[in-house]
Amino acid sequence: MTLNDVGQEMYNLCHSLFPICRSITGDGVRQTLKNIKEHIPEIIIHEVPTGTRVFDWVVPREWNIRDAYILDPDGQKIIDFTESNLHVVGYSVPVNKTVSLKELQNHLYSIPDQPDAIPYITSYYAERWGFCLSEIQRRLLKPGDYHVVIDSTLTDGSLTYGELLIPGESSKEVFLSTYICHPSMANNELSGPVVTTYLSKWLLSLMNRKYSYRIVFIPETIGSITYLSRNLDHIKQKTIAGFNVTCIGDNKAYSYLPSREGSTLADRVALHVLKYLHPDFVQYSYLERGSDERQYCSPGVDLPVASVMRTKYGRYPEYHTSLDDLSLVSPEGLAGGYEVLRTCLECIERNEILETTLLCEPQLGRRGLYPTLSTKDGGKQVRNMMNLIAFCDGMNDLIQIAEKINVPIWDLFDIVERLKQEGVLKTVSPDF
Amino acid sequence: MTLNDVGQEMYNLCHSLFPICRSITGDGVRQTLKNIKEHIPEIIIHEVPTGTRVFDWVVPREWNIRDAYILDPDGQKIIDFTESNLHVVGYSVPVNKTVSLKELQNHLYSIPDQPDAIPYITSYYAERWGFCLSEIQRRLLKPGDYHVVIDSTLTDGSLTYGELLIPGESSKEVFLSTYICHPSMANNELSGPVVTTYLSKWLLSLMNRKYSYRIVFIPETIGSITYLSRNLDHIKQKTIAGFNVTCIGDNKAYSYLPSREGSTLADRVALHVLKYLHPDFVQYSYLERGSDERQYCSPGVDLPVASVMRTKYGRYPEYHTSLDDLSLVSPEGLAGGYEVLRTCLECIERNEILETTLLCEPQLGRRGLYPTLSTKDGGKQVRNMMNLIAFCDGMNDLIQIAEKINVPIWDLFDIVERLKQEGVLKTVSPDF
Amino acid sequence: MTLNDVGQEMYNLCHSLFPICRSITGDGVRQTLKNIKEHIPEIIIHEVPTGTRVFDWVVPREWNIRDAYILDPDGQKIIDFTESNLHVVGYSVPVNKTVSLKELQNHLYSIPDQPDAIPYITSYYAERWGFCLSEIQRRLLKPGDYHVVIDSTLTDGSLTYGELLIPGESSKEVFLSTYICHPSMANNELSGPVVTTYLSKWLLSLMNRKYSYRIVFIPETIGSITYLSRNLDHIKQKTIAGFNVTCIGDNKAYSYLPSREGSTLADRVALHVLKYLHPDFVQYSYLERGSDERQYCSPGVDLPVASVMRTKYGRYPEYHTSLDDLSLVSPEGLAGGYEVLRTCLECIERNEILETTLLCEPQLGRRGLYPTLSTKDGGKQVRNMMNLIAFCDGMNDLIQIAEKINVPIWDLFDIVERLKQEGVLKTVSPDF
Repeated sequence: MTLNDVGQEMYNLCHSLFPICRSITGDGVRQTLKNIKEHIPEIIIHEVPTGTRVFDWVVPREWNIRDAYILDPDGQKIIDFTESNLHVVGYSVPVNKTVSLKELQNHLYSIPDQPDAIPYITSYYAERWGFCLSEIQRRLLKPGDYHVVIDSTLTDGSLTYGELLIPGESSKEVFLSTYICHPSMANNELSGPVVTTYLSKWLLSLMNRKYSYRIVFIPETIGSITYLSRNLDHIKQKTIAGFNVTCIGDNKAYSYLPSREGSTLADRVALHVLKYLHPDFVQYSYLERGSDERQYCSPGVDLPVASVMRTKYGRYPEYHTSLDDLSLVSPEGLAGGYEVLRTCLECIERNEILETTLLCEPQLGRRGLYPTLSTKDGGKQVRNMMNLIAFCDGMNDLIQIAEKINVPIWDLFDIVERLKQEGVLKTVSPDF
Repeated sequence: MTLNDVGQEMYNLCHSLFPICRSITGDGVRQTLKNIKEHIPEIIIHEVPTGTRVFDWVVPREWNIRDAYILDPDGQKIIDFTESNLHVVGYSVPVNKTVSLKELQNHLYSIPDQPDAIPYITSYYAERWGFCLSEIQRRLLKPGDYHVVIDSTLTDGSLTYGELLIPGESSKEVFLSTYICHPSMANNELSGPVVTTYLSKWLLSLMNRKYSYRIVFIPETIGSITYLSRNLDHIKQKTIAGFNVTCIGDNKAYSYLPSREGSTLADRVALHVLKYLHPDFVQYSYLERGSDERQYCSPGVDLPVASVMRTKYGRYPEYHTSLDDLSLVSPEGLAGGYEVLRTCLECIERNEILETTLLCEPQLGRRGLYPTLSTKDGGKQVRNMMNLIAFCDGMNDLIQIAEKINVPIWDLFDIVERLKQEGVLKTVSPDF
Repeated sequence: MTLNDVGQEMYNLCHSLFPICRSITGDGVRQTLKNIKEHIPEIIIHEVPTGTRVFDWVVPREWNIRDAYILDPDGQKIIDFTESNLHVVGYSVPVNKTVSLKELQNHLYSIPDQPDAIPYITSYYAERWGFCLSEIQRRLLKPGDYHVVIDSTLTDGSLTYGELLIPGESSKEVFLSTYICHPSMANNELSGPVVTTYLSKWLLSLMNRKYSYRIVFIPETIGSITYLSRNLDHIKQKTIAGFNVTCIGDNKAYSYLPSREGSTLADRVALHVLKYLHPDFVQYSYLERGSDERQYCSPGVDLPVASVMRTKYGRYPEYHTSLDDLSLVSPEGLAGGYEVLRTCLECIERNEILETTLLCEPQLGRRGLYPTLSTKDGGKQVRNMMNLIAFCDGMNDLIQIAEKINVPIWDLFDIVERLKQEGVLKTVSPDF
């Protein structure tokens, strides 16, 4: 399957997941995971009951919604949940009553600067009800009494997440995390789980994997906290690198946000890959974080998790509005993000610490690895090989060597294989 | 008392101390300390006898002077110690004789480039006598015989210094050192002891002090050597940070000169405070040192002592001349220097190593610390709190965290208190 | 002997060595070493038999050549080895036959872009024969049959190198390596052994040497590998710094190429000396290496060997052609290179770790080291002394201190001696 095909398939999956009304709990999450499971049947769905303590937090009640609307003084349905699930403030409590325009205004959210955008608003931890609408719609509201209906339930239930373990030769794990808790938004929601789904499919298709891969599809914040509270010891012990997969489907920038520590394997590989594939990538500070790295990199958790993104959350005007729709992402955008992350995973797979088996430079000529006739220009093409050998001192891993000798690590993969076959290089440590 | 009031009081104290003829020993030092003791009665006056060995040095004989003048060939008093105590070379031996102009010239000091300035000259360790005068005065001297009188004594006595210990909860100490050995000069003499006196008064006024404060008023060089020779073990063991207080009263630059090591607590707090209060401050190298940090930071002593100054000694034309008078310092200049140093001390008091008590981000909402409604702009104001928590890993102190998250440390003081009350943060080590 | 005289003598030695046809083995190497031995009789000549295993390599058969020429279809000798020994591809097997121009072309080497240059070509590890000629000569070849003669032998014999040990007080060694394997070329061959010969003469002339000096004259690559294979343990244990001496005789740039590690004593001293003697020197990366540092700095060997050069190999158009002749080097060029390396060796000899014998600043006045009269400008000239003392903390060596206080180390030599005599400084460790 070509990269173009993968891009198109990912876009199609975005399309099918777009209408589902997700939140941090509820049937929207379950439906989303069910659709994803059709692509990666190995995924396991976990349910964590309402009220479960997860570190400083408590799993909240489960929220579900069937319908919501506003009738204007003339009885016209002017706001309709079935047209856009962004119209309802997430976790709105049920309501069914008539209110004056003045009172209604206290429950309405719009963005004066983006008059045609419906904002995305939630109120998970304080009981509220509210409607979101465009500033244009709001300005048209006339005085009078409005009938508001939100047919939602907020009841004991559970928090749902998906987990996939793809075993490899080593029990050391690479960790991928993405979130499934936003309603109909494309870049800042669907691009993450969709690209992660296709990375999972690619990993499952590999004949050999050096590392194991642990991949979670969770609601943001409460989901990662819940996941960590149940798996902290294991994940701290096993994880060598991880990525938070979000905002990875538009066709504009490439971005990187470091782990808190800043120089983990995940950071090093992401910087190396982006430097060569997309040298104009945007580098953010950890101070500009805003997704689940907040939990993964928190003191005491300290996972090596970085973010590789297209345009970062909060950095594009459509973010957290109805304008972050399927026109914002594209097959090409998704494919580009997928390719960078897949390359990062490939580099982690191939990364290792090597050392030479012999002292001084090897005699490459008798191994057919060196031009036998020394000329003025000769040897330019063997420079990479000689540089690689010169730095295989058992101290630096292949990413560090590639950085030192100013080549992309993938230019060294074949050379490494050949020099291992020749017995010139040997692996010091196969994993980390 | 407002900062303006403190500035005015400090200026008044400069005024009263200005006429006293100080040197590295003698009654001028004692009179100065007596005046200071009126403000901080807790100060203890030490006398160290002439001949005492202090490391590589010996406490010199005590110098006192009652009068000095030159009569010109016509019997006119043309140089008069009572008009300016700078007229006599410090530590001049007594003289009372008639000399030719030619011989007199060998004992005169003036500055051709600053024709109206009387230079400040001393000869502590070689017996000399001499007069300092302005170049203008010198050019008026006519041929003939001059009668020179210096009514001084150079006899066994003692070196005098003052020491103040302000106890705190911890026996760890913050060290302040200033010098009282220059005759009538304002910025490069009185600003130091005067600002230090008012810092002492402020420290004494505090209800609680985490640290103890050891404050010395000493003659420069021989005084700090003497002090260290008598207190080295204690001061090396107890001092967590210190400042040499000098040239802190003019109204021009703010300056910083590092400790030799360069990254001690004193250096870090000075750089942090100056960066936010006076971002255009001048940063000197330790190679440009010239005061008692030469002793405090010498090999084997290695105290964490930095200098925070207004315009540095040697960097203003009036330095070490009669032009460094009370017009060069001002209430505002003194208040500005006082404020920076007081802020440094406050920051040291509030600095500590913190860690979070729980894993992952805390649920701030239920503690009333977080807006419960997530909006597009929401959270900007809690960013500081979240950043603080994100870096409270028990590894960095509060100054380091403030530097990492790009805020002045004082913006974190209230947040730290609140988060400690909430049990989210706890102190790892209360002092250093 | 003045530096000018040394330059002239070195140039004369280049002149006498220039005609000898050197290769990696053979009588040319022996003749070269014999000439050098006339200057430094202490040198020992080693012969290592063909077939000896040296790490991954094998000492090759010995190559000698008596004559070589090409007769054109008219019987005219158009290529003549006796005119330039570059005319024959190094290690050419013997040949004596008539070939067509077409076949001959397969055995000819010229440089179209440098039409008047004879290239320097070798084929050590694959049996070939060939002639090198200028592009101009080549274009004049007319159709017909050519008679080619190479009267060479490729037989079991030995690899020859010279080794000189100049003992010092310490058994710790400084290592110099230069190569003697190129035929008639001046900068990229003779400048190295000639400057090394005169550095050896200078070292032998010294009354005292703190360190021992081990100096090798070897064929490049196979020679350094051979040398290391026979002496690795000793040289790894004893060598504190070393230099590869090559391309050190032209009158253009000064260059530095680091050791692989990059901050060894050799690197530090080379950078310090070049910074002060030739601040516009060119700094290369280890990735641009190309001489015996490839072996000396290889993983597991890890010697502290850097290169100080004039114009680096491969960076001047005459490199590896007949244009790298005696007009490219000069007495001044050789003298300049010699001076830099000699200064490096002097600095290593004088480098040491010092500490003060007393706490706080010493009383320099009573030792006659300080002006007794303090004036506004006074002390500028003692600043170096005070800075030196301020950093003699037993942690930094003299090179590091010189770097910290921004003076060339040689400005400190007299001060160090004086302060040692005065008992103010003492040596912590005399060697490394």
